[in-house]
Amino acid sequence: MSIVLGPNQYGKAENRVVRIYRDTDRHEIRDVNVSTSLRGDFTDAHTTGDQARVLPTDTQKNTCYAYAKEKGLGEIETYALDLATHFVDDIEPVDGARVVVEEYAWNRVNIAGAEHPHTFVRSGQEVRTTQVTVEGTGADQRVWVVSGLKDLMVLKSTGSEFRGYLRDGYTTLRETGDRIMATSLVARWRYVGTGGDGGIDWGKAYADIRQILLARFAEVHSLALQQTLWEMGRAVLVTHPEVAEIMLSAPNKHHFLVDLGPFGLENPGEVFHADDRPYGLIECNVARDDAPAAGPAWQTVAGLS
Amino acid sequence: MSIVLGPNQYGKAENRVVRIYRDTDRHEIRDVNVSTSLRGDFTDAHTTGDQARVLPTDTQKNTCYAYAKEKGLGEIETYALDLATHFVDDIEPVDGARVVVEEYAWNRVNIAGAEHPHTFVRSGQEVRTTQVTVEGTGADQRVWVVSGLKDLMVLKSTGSEFRGYLRDGYTTLRETGDRIMATSLVARWRYVGTGGDGGIDWGKAYADIRQILLARFAEVHSLALQQTLWEMGRAVLVTHPEVAEIMLSAPNKHHFLVDLGPFGLENPGEVFHADDRPYGLIECNVARDDAPAAGPAWQTVAGLS
Amino acid sequence: MSIVLGPNQYGKAENRVVRIYRDTDRHEIRDVNVSTSLRGDFTDAHTTGDQARVLPTDTQKNTCYAYAKEKGLGEIETYALDLATHFVDDIEPVDGARVVVEEYAWNRVNIAGAEHPHTFVRSGQEVRTTQVTVEGTGADQRVWVVSGLKDLMVLKSTGSEFRGYLRDGYTTLRETGDRIMATSLVARWRYVGTGGDGGIDWGKAYADIRQILLARFAEVHSLALQQTLWEMGRAVLVTHPEVAEIMLSAPNKHHFLVDLGPFGLENPGEVFHADDRPYGLIECNVARDDAPAAGPAWQTVAGLS
Amino acid sequence: MSIVLGPNQYGKAENRVVRIYRDTDRHEIRDVNVSTSLRGDFTDAHTTGDQARVLPTDTQKNTCYAYAKEKGLGEIETYALDLATHFVDDIEPVDGARVVVEEYAWNRVNIAGAEHPHTFVRSGQEVRTTQVTVEGTGADQRVWVVSGLKDLMVLKSTGSEFRGYLRDGYTTLRETGDRIMATSLVARWRYVGTGGDGGIDWGKAYADIRQILLARFAEVHSLALQQTLWEMGRAVLVTHPEVAEIMLSAPNKHHFLVDLGPFGLENPGEVFHADDRPYGLIECNVARDDAPAAGPAWQTVAGLS
Repeated sequence: MSIVLGPNQYGKAENRVVRIYRDTDRHEIRDVNVSTSLRGDFTDAHTTGDQARVLPTDTQKNTCYAYAKEKGLGEIETYALDLATHFVDDIEPVDGARVVVEEYAWNRVNIAGAEHPHTFVRSGQEVRTTQVTVEGTGADQRVWVVSGLKDLMVLKSTGSEFRGYLRDGYTTLRETGDRIMATSLVARWRYVGTGGDGGIDWGKAYADIRQILLARFAEVHSLALQQTLWEMGRAVLVTHPEVAEIMLSAPNKHHFLVDLGPFGLENPGEVFHADDRPYGLIECNVARDDAPAAGPAWQTVAGLS
Repeated sequence: MSIVLGPNQYGKAENRVVRIYRDTDRHEIRDVNVSTSLRGDFTDAHTTGDQARVLPTDTQKNTCYAYAKEKGLGEIETYALDLATHFVDDIEPVDGARVVVEEYAWNRVNIAGAEHPHTFVRSGQEVRTTQVTVEGTGADQRVWVVSGLKDLMVLKSTGSEFRGYLRDGYTTLRETGDRIMATSLVARWRYVGTGGDGGIDWGKAYADIRQILLARFAEVHSLALQQTLWEMGRAVLVTHPEVAEIMLSAPNKHHFLVDLGPFGLENPGEVFHADDRPYGLIECNVARDDAPAAGPAWQTVAGLS
Repeated sequence: MSIVLGPNQYGKAENRVVRIYRDTDRHEIRDVNVSTSLRGDFTDAHTTGDQARVLPTDTQKNTCYAYAKEKGLGEIETYALDLATHFVDDIEPVDGARVVVEEYAWNRVNIAGAEHPHTFVRSGQEVRTTQVTVEGTGADQRVWVVSGLKDLMVLKSTGSEFRGYLRDGYTTLRETGDRIMATSLVARWRYVGTGGDGGIDWGKAYADIRQILLARFAEVHSLALQQTLWEMGRAVLVTHPEVAEIMLSAPNKHHFLVDLGPFGLENPGEVFHADDRPYGLIECNVARDDAPAAGPAWQTVAGLS
Repeated sequence: MSIVLGPNQYGKAENRVVRIYRDTDRHEIRDVNVSTSLRGDFTDAHTTGDQARVLPTDTQKNTCYAYAKEKGLGEIETYALDLATHFVDDIEPVDGARVVVEEYAWNRVNIAGAEHPHTFVRSGQEVRTTQVTVEGTGADQRVWVVSGLKDLMVLKSTGSEFRGYLRDGYTTLRETGDRIMATSLVARWRYVGTGGDGGIDWGKAYADIRQILLARFAEVHSLALQQTLWEMGRAVLVTHPEVAEIMLSAPNKHHFLVDLGPFGLENPGEVFHADDRPYGLIECNVARDDAPAAGPAWQTVAGLS
């Protein structure tokens, strides 16, 4: 038996890059949080402390800022692909790169019906995300793009029931034919293409998928959150052939009907307590059965979870 | 010398009340976080442990939920006034009550151009607030209403400079004629009236003041955040005679221009690092010189800060 | 009627200063978060945008770092006094200064019974605090020091009851003769002296008061959180003549006994659900009746709450 | 092509269970946050909404609380194993279960040299963790235990350098022979055994591994964080044959030396700015080359990352 270095990666996390486009008086803004990770043979860096093959995380940070100017910061998938392929193509010891980007959206301030050219207000809480993985160079280069969103808070005040479930000796829950269903949705979808961007209009795909998710959440009469998530995921795959699979993670943000009986009041689905913890957590993946292999696309740490 | 009980208060904080109005198929939602505090002579509760004059915080919680049904939960100011006056009028040992409400806004999900009747998505990060204080009963009853907003993230990408400031031996800052100005605004305004609601349309006042703040932030060419805040506050007072004073607290969320020179790149106001800490913090009050006294309106803890 | 600038202040918040003392191989560490606020006549800065009297917040930041070297960073009260008096004494337009410091404690790593000379591990979650206010110069200078702690999580698993409280139509709570009492304590005490440091050993006073608070929390058989807070505050004043008053703010972190009856199990005070929200919030002040006036000592924003 | 349900799981997250042992006057406390996830064939629940095979998350919550009494809540690994094997063994549709537990440590309050029997103060910020996965029943049952800690804040004020790294056109970092090294460590180690608890003393293993990590962090003269992590991980494997592999994730919490030159001050490693973002993030796995396969031990979502 001997002790060996297993999977490893390193990078600079949470570079807060803001890019202003000011070619005309009507400015544009891109506000992102970008994290880089490099993979390769960094054994010496660990076992002897020799850093000769280690591009500093400070350099990775500089590259994130420089690329926002040099290559531009438009769609986050393109920006992440630019960065990740650069690290793999141009830095010799790097065999693989992971770039994760979160984007915060801003709306223009509206004054008397007109959009202000350079003043913005943050829109919503939700965050657009992408996780790009690039491995290898030249003809062997492989690319995975997993885009998505998180913190999308949605709630429906009816059209949700929960009945007919399995019971055991620890079951006390009562069935309900009408409840609030609310979640803070995380959705992440993997694009089919593993090389280049396949001509995908990333921004349009994002907006369209987000709208499909919202519409399905609203329109499906829910028998359980599992069913709602399935219908949301399925609708995305049906309409988006460029998506290989979609992962949905949804905390069931419980809204408990308050018992107002002791105060002589009825409460027909009107007054709820929004609870914090614990919460149900429903997670599922919906996929094409002929989707190409996911490879390391979903992994957070190389070779591990 | 003796040791005495000073100012004190107690209550139930952060009751997360969600109220659904479902009289028609088109539901309405109100989502609030309400905190109550009661004041009065609670000396015995402290010094001897006798709780005979103490209405439990659990009861205060129950009242928050019950009132959402009994009195309804429309404008947060009305809901807070209902609760606060109830505690003062109906609970004998209570001389004063403070009710603080935060409201989280939801938009309807839009599907194919139509608003969905019972599905909502959280809108924005900003939070509408009110802090209502009621003291005394009958003809001597006094009421203060301080409403506002927090977490309103705004940013302008030009139209802001900072020059001509005082220098000492610790000054290294360079003047700038063009910078990003961004903040996460807290605004709180005190209404003139101290009895009843004075016929104020709380929702309309809120929306209008919010719009004035945004417009002034956008339109004032800023020589400093102080000047911008002053202009924002002044514009509110000029147009809203029902507002006695307004307090603005604005972290200067620094966006530092990144030096791309080492990489052979110019950076004419295009690539910024959004920094976390430290941040400037500018706070000011703009008031009418004939405003009635604020009394305890602004205090967080009775008799203290 | 005219519109006027009311109370205002500005400064640099949350400067994260870490000071290492390395005069010997056994290093010492001080880890603080310091925020400065300056007060004075800054009318022009607001109303005309003229910054000639405004010392930039960037300069205040520089001063915080420079003073950690120049004056040293020992007890946080001394450091805050150094900074606040500097701003008032040396910067002409400044009439008053507020410096708030939070300190994070570190313990030495212990290896085989010996303390490591330069490796530390964060101790506890609690934060030591001070808020120093200085107004005026020369013989008219006045100084207020409010020190304290926050995030001190304490819990007693018995020795707490809650009975005999006031009831109304919204009361459903059952009395209890034995419950868990837990809180995340905030304590802030104002020192009597308003000039110089009065020879107070700040570190010793802090450690001693903290211990008194813990001991009283433990030893008082609690009839209510109000009573416990009173006894904690009183014990501090009895033993510390240099303390004029103490403010205690304690969320009642509810631990609800879980009903295990449906599963055929008894639960005699053994299994609890630690709930998040809502929580009781008990706040009180304990003072000497001959304490000097608090002036602006407690105010967060000058002239306001 | 057809669209299929991929990996999925569901459960109740963040059950905040507090268990008091009060058999004698000297009480004991266990304070945990437990999350359960069930896996199996839940296709119908998703595709048709039929919940007949779904044990509600509410029931899982009840089980967590009931088991704290029924089986007890001692070492978190034992508690998680009890729960996970129950779900797999006793609930027919469940093929696999994942139970994650976080534990918050409490110290006894010490009064005049004596430990108080029932009053506790939270110790440190760090959190002890375990993630238990059970699949299959009877002779085919397999078990994986990954234990660890997170939020362990450590800092060394010297004994750390960073030199000789790779440079490219985006490199501006200067080499340093002496810097602060600080991190908020996450460590997770997988135990070899995949059935039963192998007679492991979980609490002793935890305390011992924690101490090894601290000691190695302190004693290794660091040429890079990578090297320090390797040495930490290796030391654990050398001394703990029951550990198959260990994963270390360490944000490099940058402490930047402040340039005090403009103020005429030297700064020989004394005054630092503790920065928030971005931060380096170094992650590595150290393993035995003969370790049994990890299977799903590390996965967060079944079948995915």
